[in-house]
Amino acid sequence: MAKTPRDRDVSAGTTETAGTSSGGVGGPLSDRARARDLGIAPGDLPTGEHNGITDVAGVRVGQVTLIEGEDVRTGVTAIVPHPGNVYQEKVAGGVFVGNAFGKLAGSTQVSELGTIETPIVLTNTLSVARGIDGAVTWTLAQPGNETVTSVNAVVGETNDGVLNDIRGRHVTEEHVLDAITTATDGPVQEGTVGAGTGTTCFGWKGGIGTASRVVDGYTVGVLVQTNYGGSLRVDGVPIGEELEPPDRGAAETSGDGSCVFVVATDAPLSPRNLERLGARAVFAMARTGSTFTNGSGDFAIAFSTSPDSRERPGTTVQDAKSLPNAGVSPLFRAVLDAAEEAIYNSLFMATTVTGRNGTTRHAIPLERVRSLLHRYGRIRA
Amino acid sequence: MAKTPRDRDVSAGTTETAGTSSGGVGGPLSDRARARDLGIAPGDLPTGEHNGITDVAGVRVGQVTLIEGEDVRTGVTAIVPHPGNVYQEKVAGGVFVGNAFGKLAGSTQVSELGTIETPIVLTNTLSVARGIDGAVTWTLAQPGNETVTSVNAVVGETNDGVLNDIRGRHVTEEHVLDAITTATDGPVQEGTVGAGTGTTCFGWKGGIGTASRVVDGYTVGVLVQTNYGGSLRVDGVPIGEELEPPDRGAAETSGDGSCVFVVATDAPLSPRNLERLGARAVFAMARTGSTFTNGSGDFAIAFSTSPDSRERPGTTVQDAKSLPNAGVSPLFRAVLDAAEEAIYNSLFMATTVTGRNGTTRHAIPLERVRSLLHRYGRIRA
Amino acid sequence: MAKTPRDRDVSAGTTETAGTSSGGVGGPLSDRARARDLGIAPGDLPTGEHNGITDVAGVRVGQVTLIEGEDVRTGVTAIVPHPGNVYQEKVAGGVFVGNAFGKLAGSTQVSELGTIETPIVLTNTLSVARGIDGAVTWTLAQPGNETVTSVNAVVGETNDGVLNDIRGRHVTEEHVLDAITTATDGPVQEGTVGAGTGTTCFGWKGGIGTASRVVDGYTVGVLVQTNYGGSLRVDGVPIGEELEPPDRGAAETSGDGSCVFVVATDAPLSPRNLERLGARAVFAMARTGSTFTNGSGDFAIAFSTSPDSRERPGTTVQDAKSLPNAGVSPLFRAVLDAAEEAIYNSLFMATTVTGRNGTTRHAIPLERVRSLLHRYGRIRA
Amino acid sequence: MAKTPRDRDVSAGTTETAGTSSGGVGGPLSDRARARDLGIAPGDLPTGEHNGITDVAGVRVGQVTLIEGEDVRTGVTAIVPHPGNVYQEKVAGGVFVGNAFGKLAGSTQVSELGTIETPIVLTNTLSVARGIDGAVTWTLAQPGNETVTSVNAVVGETNDGVLNDIRGRHVTEEHVLDAITTATDGPVQEGTVGAGTGTTCFGWKGGIGTASRVVDGYTVGVLVQTNYGGSLRVDGVPIGEELEPPDRGAAETSGDGSCVFVVATDAPLSPRNLERLGARAVFAMARTGSTFTNGSGDFAIAFSTSPDSRERPGTTVQDAKSLPNAGVSPLFRAVLDAAEEAIYNSLFMATTVTGRNGTTRHAIPLERVRSLLHRYGRIRA
Repeated sequence: MAKTPRDRDVSAGTTETAGTSSGGVGGPLSDRARARDLGIAPGDLPTGEHNGITDVAGVRVGQVTLIEGEDVRTGVTAIVPHPGNVYQEKVAGGVFVGNAFGKLAGSTQVSELGTIETPIVLTNTLSVARGIDGAVTWTLAQPGNETVTSVNAVVGETNDGVLNDIRGRHVTEEHVLDAITTATDGPVQEGTVGAGTGTTCFGWKGGIGTASRVVDGYTVGVLVQTNYGGSLRVDGVPIGEELEPPDRGAAETSGDGSCVFVVATDAPLSPRNLERLGARAVFAMARTGSTFTNGSGDFAIAFSTSPDSRERPGTTVQDAKSLPNAGVSPLFRAVLDAAEEAIYNSLFMATTVTGRNGTTRHAIPLERVRSLLHRYGRIRA
Repeated sequence: MAKTPRDRDVSAGTTETAGTSSGGVGGPLSDRARARDLGIAPGDLPTGEHNGITDVAGVRVGQVTLIEGEDVRTGVTAIVPHPGNVYQEKVAGGVFVGNAFGKLAGSTQVSELGTIETPIVLTNTLSVARGIDGAVTWTLAQPGNETVTSVNAVVGETNDGVLNDIRGRHVTEEHVLDAITTATDGPVQEGTVGAGTGTTCFGWKGGIGTASRVVDGYTVGVLVQTNYGGSLRVDGVPIGEELEPPDRGAAETSGDGSCVFVVATDAPLSPRNLERLGARAVFAMARTGSTFTNGSGDFAIAFSTSPDSRERPGTTVQDAKSLPNAGVSPLFRAVLDAAEEAIYNSLFMATTVTGRNGTTRHAIPLERVRSLLHRYGRIRA
Repeated sequence: MAKTPRDRDVSAGTTETAGTSSGGVGGPLSDRARARDLGIAPGDLPTGEHNGITDVAGVRVGQVTLIEGEDVRTGVTAIVPHPGNVYQEKVAGGVFVGNAFGKLAGSTQVSELGTIETPIVLTNTLSVARGIDGAVTWTLAQPGNETVTSVNAVVGETNDGVLNDIRGRHVTEEHVLDAITTATDGPVQEGTVGAGTGTTCFGWKGGIGTASRVVDGYTVGVLVQTNYGGSLRVDGVPIGEELEPPDRGAAETSGDGSCVFVVATDAPLSPRNLERLGARAVFAMARTGSTFTNGSGDFAIAFSTSPDSRERPGTTVQDAKSLPNAGVSPLFRAVLDAAEEAIYNSLFMATTVTGRNGTTRHAIPLERVRSLLHRYGRIRA
Repeated sequence: MAKTPRDRDVSAGTTETAGTSSGGVGGPLSDRARARDLGIAPGDLPTGEHNGITDVAGVRVGQVTLIEGEDVRTGVTAIVPHPGNVYQEKVAGGVFVGNAFGKLAGSTQVSELGTIETPIVLTNTLSVARGIDGAVTWTLAQPGNETVTSVNAVVGETNDGVLNDIRGRHVTEEHVLDAITTATDGPVQEGTVGAGTGTTCFGWKGGIGTASRVVDGYTVGVLVQTNYGGSLRVDGVPIGEELEPPDRGAAETSGDGSCVFVVATDAPLSPRNLERLGARAVFAMARTGSTFTNGSGDFAIAFSTSPDSRERPGTTVQDAKSLPNAGVSPLFRAVLDAAEEAIYNSLFMATTVTGRNGTTRHAIPLERVRSLLHRYGRIRA
């Protein structure tokens, strides 16, 4: 089986467009913008500095974008929970399964033990194995892990086969390692990048999106890989009823896909409450018009960076701190809003892609969206 | 412990207001109306005849409304799956647990065996036992059940303690039996009735709502008991940001509550796919602005009336018919839309109630809602 | 519906036989004895003082035994987690569902929130509602609970309809209250008592059993209500192959039944690890020859009495202590052994009962058992 | 990263010893034997022709054994559900999670959709990715699957790191493909073979075992990969108390490991009842003395080969046949017995292996076992 040469292209176009997101509301939207640039800001909680998952201190994101030839349109997004040895200092984690037409790896152990011990890797459906291998290789090689023989890699995926030669399995272990080792804090690239390079959403080009909220002194960050369908709503406005993708059949066939969330917080939460937190990310899909079809793989992987919520080595009683059940509702609200906004960001930042068989998925036209938001009274001109 | 005398009042006022729901769009809304009367109709699928759970042939609903003295504001709603002996002809059923701060009885057996064998009873949190006793008593007494010694009653609840003297546990087994035995097909009373008599929703008076959809020749019906909070959206319009309940603190404290759905369909579905169907009802809460707080008990109980999907007595192989996974997405869409509309109906049909400690929960003012829907471009004048 | 008068008989016979359990190994077994009296002691861990669930400090057990007329053979067993206000000081709890042909009340909330807030009540299948009502009434009446409006009662059951007029529902709320309020520490009555009054196990008389283990300074206690079947093994010896109950058909029909465990520990465990602890109690049924039939309701409810593992009122971060995953295996071993022994105790301490329709379930003949244990090399003469 | 050359050795020794299993009870056991050769036959149901999972018509097993140099002691076992295109004719399937310290791939989709669409692959913990890649590659290449873009590979694992250089990840995709494509019906190699090449069990050499039962005209077959611990019981006899492995510390450290079952049946079962069937395989571990430690990954993957229980392409109603709940208990009994016997076979057929760091895990000495079985009255001389 031939492997893709590693002359991948970390999509320059996407990098450029990311810069435009500082454009203010009402200004020209000739390029891409974040939801806030259009005046859309779900809920009333403030965001973190970058309005991204990396606002949770210590969380880093790395992405490898594969755009090659006519039909390679895929990639890898890696979320590294903290800068230390993740395996030795496992984070408290939980997984929520919304609809499991998906190949999420690692979920059963996370649910059983309440811990995540590797970077979380997102990629395409048929490359989950490469995601596992990359996370395992990286973990085995970390200083201090010389005797480790059991690694539970957490790998999510969506199916980018509309634009990408997914059967070619062009993602390699090296791509995954690159995504992990180049992960940085600061602003996160969105749209047609990493594991979102080839995805589609509501018949438009989908991709990677992120957002964050601050509440009660805690930060909640969400990163999403969007690849699902239904009838798009933006802040309640029925965009999907008003605006049809130019590609014949794009909207009709958009239902089946998937949506994978990674939710990070610095609030000390038990694995049980992290699973509940993740659930709200999936619930937020309904705000955006998802029809939660049979074929959608809708999952959320949630973790806490708080050292207070970590299990440490040893077999005797450990001290821990955590928010009680009665204290989690503000975080639930935060994740609902951040997940909704992250989805919009994934759409609004995505750039048009033509890929396999000449199929095109267009970037959603932001001027049209802004016009509709205005017409429906959600934003001022 | 004193029990309430049985001189309950099957709320005449509610009965009268139900009649007004035939008022057309744009006409006077001096009284209550259904969502469609305001021009709100989620999705593009047609409804059944009554736009209610009873559009699923054979399903009947019975309600007992307890309004007594200063502080009894509660009741019972019973959904009877089919006219036959439900215990002997169990329906295929599934339960989805959205957030289990709730006392749903019977769910573990439904999940294990995939069958529902009693009417489904909804009531208040502290009266679940009476709900069980009523369902059990009714079942034991049915002709043909003389030797039955095991009955799995399915009873849902929400907490109506804001308006109701819930600690008084005024619901009796007799009330439950009345609700079951008086169940009828045809239009379902909505709003301040039955198990919705004392509930609140988004700071307004909540209650019972219902709606239905027809797709691929199948009918999907939803009945909901609303008692939860967040920031109300109606068809995407941010009512909650524009319209505050007059009762000090009502909205602030409205987050914790619960929302229980009963979903019926005549499509032959496996228990597994019924659970998935129920999940979409809970997901639909997000469309309405639910914040899915810690304290909310959000469940869906779904069943199929199709004889083809029933387990029959015997220990040998049985024939069955069912929709495959690939065929359920239209039903998922139907339940999302019907659940959303049922929630609106529960609010729009509810009438103002003053109860315990003189607390009032007002009916949401429909003229104001209509005005906002118009302002936000969702309906025409 | 006529209720049973409250002239119940707290089975004097059972009380007497309990005294004989101090008989040493090898002595006369004219009456009933515990497993240890026959030389059977699964595993190598020491027991607590009473070899019962009450060895976990603070745990109390109360039982009401209903033996009336020809066919009332039932009762209530209540386990009170600690002497304080259980609602205000909820214990960490978990539920494991082995096979949910059963009506366990309260499990979904325990799984969601990780807390148990009432005494745990065991009774017969059709009296679960009375169990709930009793637990709720008791909770509402506790000083300090004057404003409580939501109570999640945990009630387990098995079906004693072979010996008991279960359709008569002779257990009342008052019986449940009696069981709770008379709960004591110290030795626990076993066999034909409380919720085990009418149960059968492997074709013999089953009932209530208990046992405990001490490991790593922690105590694990198990109480079981046995009502299931298969082919009995005692410490590996195939009693079921060698010894048939004298009642025609008793063994053949013994498969369907249920087995409910309550597991208590003073080890500080998270709800997640309590659920895992409970799982091992159900797994232990396999050691005794259970065939885990379709109709068996096999559950375990586990809780920790450790104040360190409790959620306390408030919404801000709390300190907690708990054993990490790496520290729970000794407790798993303890519960496997204690659950196995508790099952034997339920059988060995049970006395012959004749009940409904003159049906008899015999106490398993201990001399025969001892002889078989000797023949198969498990004990010395 | 260097890959292992493909000069693997399909362990000749194992092949030879397999032939000795025809030795009758009481004859010389100089080599390995199956449990039945020692007179151990759990339960009273008959076996299929080969007393293996391949007795379920159409099921094939392929194994690749990697024994190379000083420290490669691992392999792959593949179970192919039927001879057709497994992806196009998916089998009904279910997964039971006993204790999820394990990396089972594919389980969430199986639980959601109730189908298995690839061969089931077993291998070592760090080679799950190669298992996925192999199953995906094979599936994509099958005639008729030219347009397939989504494949849910089911891959189980246990940790063979005691004997194997597991960190070297010597299993390749090609090994997995070989296991799948060389799968055959007929007798299944057991012991030190395939995915059992490097496993240990109760301090002895574990491995692959299989067994079957016939009941009500249906066949239930089990294949197990044993790698767990506790205190071994064989047919109730406390071998673990009497017989210690010669390797210092082997038994003490044997607790953490894993045990993965594949259960096949030709009975038409729903996915729900297949999950329940799988549960009984895990429960059977308790019969053998498992202590179900924290670190054990105990899973069962169950499927039905019956075409009547398969979902077929299409979106409209399908006919199906299945056993009702009331008919599954005989199959539950069958799987309990077959799983127990398969475990014994994995131990009794395993041959001594010396591997990584010169560590040895000895084959359990069958003469000693037979002697103990005799002493404890389970077999005649």
